[in-house]
Amino acid sequence: MSIISPVRERFATELGELAALTDSSRPGWTRRALSEEDVAGRDYARTLMKQAGLETRIDGAGNVIGLLRGRLGGREIMLGSHTDTVDGGGRFDGITGVLGAIEVVRLLRENDVRLDHDLVIVVFFNEEPNDFGLFCVGSRAMTGLVDRSTLAAVDPTGRTLAEALPESAIDPEAFLNARYDFARVTAFLELHIEQGPELERAGRQIGVVETITGINHFRALFTGRQDHAGTTPMDVRADAGCAAAGTVLAVESIAGSGENTRGTCGQISFTPEAVNVVSQNAVVEGEFRGPEGSWLHEAQRRLTDAAAAEASRRGVSVEVEWTTDDAPVPLHEPVTSTIASVADDLGLSRATMFSGAGHDAGIIAAKTRVGMVFVPSVDGRSHCPEEFTDLDDIMPGVSVLLETVLRVDRWYAG
Amino acid sequence: MSIISPVRERFATELGELAALTDSSRPGWTRRALSEEDVAGRDYARTLMKQAGLETRIDGAGNVIGLLRGRLGGREIMLGSHTDTVDGGGRFDGITGVLGAIEVVRLLRENDVRLDHDLVIVVFFNEEPNDFGLFCVGSRAMTGLVDRSTLAAVDPTGRTLAEALPESAIDPEAFLNARYDFARVTAFLELHIEQGPELERAGRQIGVVETITGINHFRALFTGRQDHAGTTPMDVRADAGCAAAGTVLAVESIAGSGENTRGTCGQISFTPEAVNVVSQNAVVEGEFRGPEGSWLHEAQRRLTDAAAAEASRRGVSVEVEWTTDDAPVPLHEPVTSTIASVADDLGLSRATMFSGAGHDAGIIAAKTRVGMVFVPSVDGRSHCPEEFTDLDDIMPGVSVLLETVLRVDRWYAG
Repeated sequence: MSIISPVRERFATELGELAALTDSSRPGWTRRALSEEDVAGRDYARTLMKQAGLETRIDGAGNVIGLLRGRLGGREIMLGSHTDTVDGGGRFDGITGVLGAIEVVRLLRENDVRLDHDLVIVVFFNEEPNDFGLFCVGSRAMTGLVDRSTLAAVDPTGRTLAEALPESAIDPEAFLNARYDFARVTAFLELHIEQGPELERAGRQIGVVETITGINHFRALFTGRQDHAGTTPMDVRADAGCAAAGTVLAVESIAGSGENTRGTCGQISFTPEAVNVVSQNAVVEGEFRGPEGSWLHEAQRRLTDAAAAEASRRGVSVEVEWTTDDAPVPLHEPVTSTIASVADDLGLSRATMFSGAGHDAGIIAAKTRVGMVFVPSVDGRSHCPEEFTDLDDIMPGVSVLLETVLRVDRWYAG
Repeated sequence: MSIISPVRERFATELGELAALTDSSRPGWTRRALSEEDVAGRDYARTLMKQAGLETRIDGAGNVIGLLRGRLGGREIMLGSHTDTVDGGGRFDGITGVLGAIEVVRLLRENDVRLDHDLVIVVFFNEEPNDFGLFCVGSRAMTGLVDRSTLAAVDPTGRTLAEALPESAIDPEAFLNARYDFARVTAFLELHIEQGPELERAGRQIGVVETITGINHFRALFTGRQDHAGTTPMDVRADAGCAAAGTVLAVESIAGSGENTRGTCGQISFTPEAVNVVSQNAVVEGEFRGPEGSWLHEAQRRLTDAAAAEASRRGVSVEVEWTTDDAPVPLHEPVTSTIASVADDLGLSRATMFSGAGHDAGIIAAKTRVGMVFVPSVDGRSHCPEEFTDLDDIMPGVSVLLETVLRVDRWYAG
């Protein structure tokens, strides 16, 4: 149905060039927020935006914002994603949506299609978790979810975010004042790779996201007693390491209890970390995700109880701290049903999806109508160097993004 | 019965001075082998040995060896222990036996008691595990258990032992040729703190060690698949971290299956170590100890099986490497029964003991008749700053050591 097709070759070139801006000292395709490579990545995107004919600026929170003026203006359709990656990440997470949005602008201009709405493209600063325990930093700043306590967050070396931001040319005071006026925004759309195996498993081309996962992060600190591993009988030990290991398994077990629910412990450490010493301290960091807030609260309660049980039966004490407690975000039904109709009309197969990954779209959803378009990930791999999506699978996503913009533009109400 | 009593005050002074030679940048009382503080500790002991009237030398492996010539000579009674500590260790482990042996020499000379045997005191180099994965290094060198592969052992920075030894004034070639002629040695005796709770629990003053523990060290390397923690369903994960956690619990469970058996995992790590990434790799290092070789082999087999099961049910692969496989060491019955008789004759309460800790005595036992004397540890604590033994509990141990020397001296056969 669509008469405008995205141009695969230029998208491929840009994807290759942007993905190559990585920290060569790290594995995979690493462009972490607050690094030189991340600054270079956002610069690269801004250059493309200018070339595409957008008026660009960088807001106080490091978000690159491009504007394509509409026929009527005053109201906006916003598209966006991010260019930063996790450590050892892949080539498609984030930048697929950024380049897809820029391609939409080029296609509109090349085909002399002028929207009623202003079209705004945002390259969000710092979507992935940083060393300060924060993520979706740029979108939180735009929606007013940051304050002085955000600036006071510390990394493992004790440096504050306020100290780190200027290295990425972000002024801490400006960061606090980067709120965006979402009253003008009719809808926000984000194209993204799925990062999971569902579309590939189901043999579908487009994922229409219904809900973005809720996320609870926890840190469990176990305090036992440091003892000689040879001379201390098993029955008098207070082994913090064993209590921590039991908690890792509890997360795995609890996560298996729901529909589309997940639980992971990606970090653990024992102290003093000697092969012949019973651990005095252990720290486990993990998380639960799922589409239902009630399940997440239940998982939180069950894990707190399980950690306490693992600790107490070993004479160990434990403190479980929940550092993130983000509720699941349902996306806007009229937007998601528009995306679904677009996919159908373009002859693309589709599936309704739950996003197990967090996204800037989930933050923006508190302020305006939000929809997300997913394209398949090979073998469901993401946040790893093997992350891959064929260009033949991305281009349909760009088409859906473009056509959805055209349809949402009809919602203009001045 | 003994008419010679050890002098508590000078022992207390020396214990305080030697314990104070620590690395102030580390917790507890840290004097690790291959550090400046360790060189200072062995120097301090050598000075005391000279003052006590011993002819001293340092052998090729850094062992400080002192000689008190006997009436007949040619045959020797050897006493010894170590002055190095674990990181964050205590004030009594090792140096109690070194100072006790020196006190024995002083008491003999002050009381004009001349043995038939030459009396040899050894301060063994590097008894505690070092960064090269080695322990009882000095005693192994004296008994011919070191070779070029020992020198090639590497620390986590990739440095070899051969590169590190010269900093402690040990020449690698001399290290390989530090064998001692144990044919001349009638018996070896070591006084040591128990480091466990058995004597205190039983209300006994002297532990007569029957067996020194066997030790198996293992390293289990799990290889799973790095995936996004939010988008990867639980049933398609290959989470190396969960397999590792299950293995930690298997060690705990297997260790509870025997008499005086222990199992500990003091080290664990997940990679890439990010809260929102399923772990690709995990490493667990642990050990089993016990008085029965057959149980240790059974534990080894069960743990290898358990790690394989924890891995395979998660689609993870595992390699279990047993880096140490030291059999339990039964001590010499005539020596241990002499120690027991001495304790009885001195009116001291005693218990027959299993040593869950490894000791240089266990290495020397391959070459001559060995006995060990334990004194109680408060609350069984050791390898931690809280490690404590009252001088009132150490002095009876020194008396037993002295009296046992006098009785073994009667075994002289030229």
